[in-house]
Amino acid sequence: MNPKAYYKLTYGLYIISSKSGDKMNGYIANTAFQITAEPPQIAISCHKDNLSSSIIKDSGLFAISVLKQDVATKLIGTFGFKSGKNIDKFDSVDYKTGSTGIPIVTTDCVAWFECKLVQTVDVGSHILFIGEVVDNSLLDENQEPLTYTWYQTVKNGKAPKNSPTYQKPKELKETDSKSEFKKYECIVCNHIYDEAEGDAETGIPPGTRFEDLPDDWVCPTCGAEKADFEEVK
Amino acid sequence: MNPKAYYKLTYGLYIISSKSGDKMNGYIANTAFQITAEPPQIAISCHKDNLSSSIIKDSGLFAISVLKQDVATKLIGTFGFKSGKNIDKFDSVDYKTGSTGIPIVTTDCVAWFECKLVQTVDVGSHILFIGEVVDNSLLDENQEPLTYTWYQTVKNGKAPKNSPTYQKPKELKETDSKSEFKKYECIVCNHIYDEAEGDAETGIPPGTRFEDLPDDWVCPTCGAEKADFEEVK
Repeated sequence: MNPKAYYKLTYGLYIISSKSGDKMNGYIANTAFQITAEPPQIAISCHKDNLSSSIIKDSGLFAISVLKQDVATKLIGTFGFKSGKNIDKFDSVDYKTGSTGIPIVTTDCVAWFECKLVQTVDVGSHILFIGEVVDNSLLDENQEPLTYTWYQTVKNGKAPKNSPTYQKPKELKETDSKSEFKKYECIVCNHIYDEAEGDAETGIPPGTRFEDLPDDWVCPTCGAEKADFEEVK
Repeated sequence: MNPKAYYKLTYGLYIISSKSGDKMNGYIANTAFQITAEPPQIAISCHKDNLSSSIIKDSGLFAISVLKQDVATKLIGTFGFKSGKNIDKFDSVDYKTGSTGIPIVTTDCVAWFECKLVQTVDVGSHILFIGEVVDNSLLDENQEPLTYTWYQTVKNGKAPKNSPTYQKPKELKETDSKSEFKKYECIVCNHIYDEAEGDAETGIPPGTRFEDLPDDWVCPTCGAEKADFEEVK
């Protein structure tokens, strides 16, 4: 078994959004695919621990916004690595309200699909939500959609821990350098970033080098930027 | 609703193979995606009419071979547009026998996954097969996998009629030019020859009338003859 074989599976990157009562939420997914043509149905895989799973189950609705290739990394950080339990992710984006009443993110997106849930499949750690497309829109025909490969290679992006395609750093050890992990200290609040441990709160897996943190990663304690960290000697 | 919005969903292209008793079969799919990480499970969507659906149900096994970017069009023609009811698709390719006994195509592939079926979901015209990966291999780390976008734009490929992402030519009329050029559809694989566009792959310049195509011209997708084309009204 070679974990790197999975890198040859091709995906896009999407914001999946929903709303139940007054609570809106959304997250980043790479697993959205059309499973029938007539009627058009799309399946997504969502971790059971994600707030969005319960919101989609409650409302029976979800939307898929297709991210464009040059999406702002900050948008992925907000929707992919932060929990809607703590912040309102929609504060920082443009969205429209679909015909079913759910929010549909349009910032940095090329198309969207609004779906009614028709089937729910328990697949272990995740739930497969199958939705029938009730509305859609092509926002920008000429913009390329962001692919997962582009996100990983050009944007140096990682998979969040609850992603269906997440791989533990230990499984990828063969690709790691042999050097020892380092620690970095926030000069504002003295928070320590330890490469060996990563940072669970901001979704950074153990073994992530400081230099590989997203450019818009901030100190989980005080919000200082990467440039405000110094290596602990 | 805009059918072209679906073009912004990103897919790879795969050969799905299986075997039941002595009968081996395989087909081309663009819908294969990992739905959980632990254990690794992959879902595929297969049309109920496909021979492969009954073979996968009977055997409880399937393999996914990831096609490389510069795959031979003929391979896609054989596995994507011909039925295993009539020919042995494996005559023309290299394949290995996996640990479960099923054939795994290796010709023009960069990686493969061998799966045991763990769940079957009826989604209307198609069946969602969910398999747990029992073995895999990375055949060529440096080769890019073929994406569906590449197949459509560079190779001018079409979706087979039983694909979850198939779109009827009439639904795409809004994209037609206003000129009096005509279109002809391959009755075998639904490939469209558009006189306005010609056919770059077989060296036919834009503006070439169908009647002016060489007598030995064949469908670039499946190899059918000129006589197998019908004018699109």
